[in-house]
Amino acid sequence: MNRNIKVAVAQMNSYVGGVEYNYKKIVKFIKSAKERAADLICFPELALVGYPPEDLLLSSKFLKSVELAIKKIQQSKYKTSFILGYPKIIEGKLFNVAGVFINGQLKYEYKKIYLPNYGVFDEERYFAAGDKPLIFNFKGRNICLTICEDIWHKNGIYNNLSNIESLDLLINISASPYSTFKQGERFKLLSSISKKNNLEIVYCNMVGGQDELVFDGASMYLDSKGNPILKGKDFSEDLLIKTLGRRLRYKAIPIKRGTKNESLLHIFSALSLGLKDYVLKNGFKKVVIGISGGIDSALVAAIAAKSLGPKNVLGIAMPTKFNSQLSLNLANDLSENIGFRLKISEIQEIFDNNLKLLKRDVYGKTDFDITEENLQARIRANILMATSNKLGSLLLSTGNKSETSIGYSTLYGDATGGIAILKDIPKTLVYDLAKFYNIHNPNQAIPLKIIHRDPSAELRMNQKDSDSLPPYKILDKILELHIEDGIEAIKIASKLGIKKSLVLKIINKLNMSEFKRRQGPIGIKITSKAFGRDRRYPITNGFKEA
Amino acid sequence: MNRNIKVAVAQMNSYVGGVEYNYKKIVKFIKSAKERAADLICFPELALVGYPPEDLLLSSKFLKSVELAIKKIQQSKYKTSFILGYPKIIEGKLFNVAGVFINGQLKYEYKKIYLPNYGVFDEERYFAAGDKPLIFNFKGRNICLTICEDIWHKNGIYNNLSNIESLDLLINISASPYSTFKQGERFKLLSSISKKNNLEIVYCNMVGGQDELVFDGASMYLDSKGNPILKGKDFSEDLLIKTLGRRLRYKAIPIKRGTKNESLLHIFSALSLGLKDYVLKNGFKKVVIGISGGIDSALVAAIAAKSLGPKNVLGIAMPTKFNSQLSLNLANDLSENIGFRLKISEIQEIFDNNLKLLKRDVYGKTDFDITEENLQARIRANILMATSNKLGSLLLSTGNKSETSIGYSTLYGDATGGIAILKDIPKTLVYDLAKFYNIHNPNQAIPLKIIHRDPSAELRMNQKDSDSLPPYKILDKILELHIEDGIEAIKIASKLGIKKSLVLKIINKLNMSEFKRRQGPIGIKITSKAFGRDRRYPITNGFKEA
Repeated sequence: MNRNIKVAVAQMNSYVGGVEYNYKKIVKFIKSAKERAADLICFPELALVGYPPEDLLLSSKFLKSVELAIKKIQQSKYKTSFILGYPKIIEGKLFNVAGVFINGQLKYEYKKIYLPNYGVFDEERYFAAGDKPLIFNFKGRNICLTICEDIWHKNGIYNNLSNIESLDLLINISASPYSTFKQGERFKLLSSISKKNNLEIVYCNMVGGQDELVFDGASMYLDSKGNPILKGKDFSEDLLIKTLGRRLRYKAIPIKRGTKNESLLHIFSALSLGLKDYVLKNGFKKVVIGISGGIDSALVAAIAAKSLGPKNVLGIAMPTKFNSQLSLNLANDLSENIGFRLKISEIQEIFDNNLKLLKRDVYGKTDFDITEENLQARIRANILMATSNKLGSLLLSTGNKSETSIGYSTLYGDATGGIAILKDIPKTLVYDLAKFYNIHNPNQAIPLKIIHRDPSAELRMNQKDSDSLPPYKILDKILELHIEDGIEAIKIASKLGIKKSLVLKIINKLNMSEFKRRQGPIGIKITSKAFGRDRRYPITNGFKEA
Repeated sequence: MNRNIKVAVAQMNSYVGGVEYNYKKIVKFIKSAKERAADLICFPELALVGYPPEDLLLSSKFLKSVELAIKKIQQSKYKTSFILGYPKIIEGKLFNVAGVFINGQLKYEYKKIYLPNYGVFDEERYFAAGDKPLIFNFKGRNICLTICEDIWHKNGIYNNLSNIESLDLLINISASPYSTFKQGERFKLLSSISKKNNLEIVYCNMVGGQDELVFDGASMYLDSKGNPILKGKDFSEDLLIKTLGRRLRYKAIPIKRGTKNESLLHIFSALSLGLKDYVLKNGFKKVVIGISGGIDSALVAAIAAKSLGPKNVLGIAMPTKFNSQLSLNLANDLSENIGFRLKISEIQEIFDNNLKLLKRDVYGKTDFDITEENLQARIRANILMATSNKLGSLLLSTGNKSETSIGYSTLYGDATGGIAILKDIPKTLVYDLAKFYNIHNPNQAIPLKIIHRDPSAELRMNQKDSDSLPPYKILDKILELHIEDGIEAIKIASKLGIKKSLVLKIINKLNMSEFKRRQGPIGIKITSKAFGRDRRYPITNGFKEA
């Protein structure tokens, strides 16, 4: 009875909440897969509602729209067999379900057993846990169906699969967000499950950007020896179809080990897709960016031009007397190279007027301090937001992870915008990405002088980042060891050969800046621990690391 | 062996993360209770670390500091018996623990069984669930110890207590945040448990403000007939001591039913305490507020003056040509009545300069639209934030729940500040609170004209809120029925006798404004469903209610 079957993976970019939009896309995928003679089509976890739907799951109206959409899919003329992810209330409880539809008829509903509730995940807020594995027979083959975390959990079903007689295939439908090295981890896990159980695997992952998360796709087929035999595209939709059968021998495709270049490509792609989906799914086409002549805004402009087209990018440079002529020249060079429009608007007069007014009406004459630095950034934010309002363009924030970590930014100033695509990118990685971009885009390059000049906020005369911060190489390492690896100050100091007091100073700045992050734009998760839904700290917080 | 014992309730205001601060306060409570001959002192849930500690619980350094503090409490000279809440790793898992210390020695550790993971709660993100009830004997009395949710959960232990022979007392230590009617719900629950099991109850709740939450205290003792015999203060620390014993007869104290006046008093107290704790625990003393001459900023100023002292409040009025002379006069009257300083700073010139610059350098001549309205609000935000930076004062935002719901506010404009204390207060309730305040503070009254004038943002000529919004009575009812009660548009329309299209328009505005709320200040939860950690919606969201 080991008939070979054609299994399709519909690596789909769902729209969170857009049930109508998703249903139409699902039907299109079914049509295409059927045309290619697929027997069974797999969709990602919660494909019908997007991931994560958050508190939409608490709305009965929303859940009704899901029921309705399932009916419409079943009633479509493309009667075929497919596995679809959706939320469903069963006996009074909400489950994260994978429905198995045979020739359009719902035959089985598998309820996800292991609900992730850590990191970016909150599934226990919404779902009850299933308690029964599902193994079903399809055209003579025994298939075990799982959802995402089910195979990651140490008590997961895959540990017992070898006990089950004549199991032919493991299917896992996922909404597994990207972070660096995640693809390698997934392959390692899948391969070990396959080898351990002598089992073919179909892994179907979601793709697309949703607020802070990017799903990278990269679905996989593995033969029963743990070899990868087909892989979905990275960071774009794909429809994979493969005939599976225990007796076939496949040629393994190479799954690249995470080289630095591949890693940079992935990160660049994640930022591009995350940006594009955020802009388009929120109904925008165009973006506006404050261009300083520094590296962060240059990279944001380059990524925006790549993902949205340079015509949809407007840059504005807003110098005061503290900005060098070099900065302005480099902003101009950048706009010419990349091909986006640049407007220049000197804000010195408005800055002076604000200062005059504050001194006259509010607090009298005072020395220049952080107030005046912030004020410049906030005047720029006003110009940018007015432009955003007037032209219907989304403002992009240019802050990186290093400055977001320690609050080296102005709340309501440079930390304004719909999304800060570099929020999870440490400054040292910003440089690497800029160089990577230049190699692949020699004709739209970021000017080398932008990459090589000393970083500066230019908010006071001759200011340099190094005046108030340790070198970024050190800073980023401290932050990575503390935020991502949770290592204590004393151990970080000894590991890096630096003073404990410096490490503590950085950690305290990190803790003191939570109020800025809480009101800052969302970013796109890239690392193993991003600010936002991944790392949730109280603003009011009396814990002192020292 | 039914010896009567003196049980103390230490209704404590903990500082989240401030383990050192909390430990010292705990020792002081122990000292006071011992001086009053208490046999057993109860502290609230997680009293040692504050509630909710969020991702601090993932830090091993933090958990080590907790261990250390427990040792220091045990080593203090006040050897007594007490029940203390703290997080602890036991056999590799983190639990929400209530430690029972007898004469300073740790005798039992109860692990919370039911972990709330809904609404504002995320306990399953951090804690493993305990699985064993704790009933211990103390001076001849059998005591069952529970933590917060344990008694709220429908499968909770209290349902089986009547089976347990000679149980004398139920203790529940809680961190139960305030919302309207919550005190009544708590009493109802406790009373029913007491009656059902013929059991005395000691309920020890936390007090204090922590970011979005306010704990109201209001701890209670109930006799074995479900009668309240002692109640802790509302919204302030308290130390209660009462001799308990099954054979005693107590006189029940009246627990007031939630009259409107009592409800207003509670809400006013919640906002005052939430504000005060946010300001002080974050290291500020003074606040700055933009004063418009309207009702929202008037109420915020009144509450701030009450909780922080009028000397610590600075108001700034920043008129343009769109602001009436009446507004300025009323702002002046307000500041005189309440006794805070008011600065006046006309921003028309800066507004004109910004417009000139935008037209000349960025987008050319255009008609007056929402851009120009927002720009005024953002220029004011810059003045306010500069003042905040220069004087070290915290900026308070004045937005209410009605406008926060539908995005009738300017991001980075009026929606700036450390905390928006009215964020969960619908506009109609703002008026009620202002009137309530005036009755109790006749000598520092909010001018009646502020209460009675038509609300207006004054961002264009002769603008009124009613130009673009339905009457607040209708709007607030729609929002309450939809947000708090989750009722569908069609039912809301029929219930209120209004058009479905109006309800849908409001609900769509609500959904479209998530991006503003995500970057707006935190508020203080008052209703059954507040924006923030209580209501978590995606920004990118394709769900259409219609």
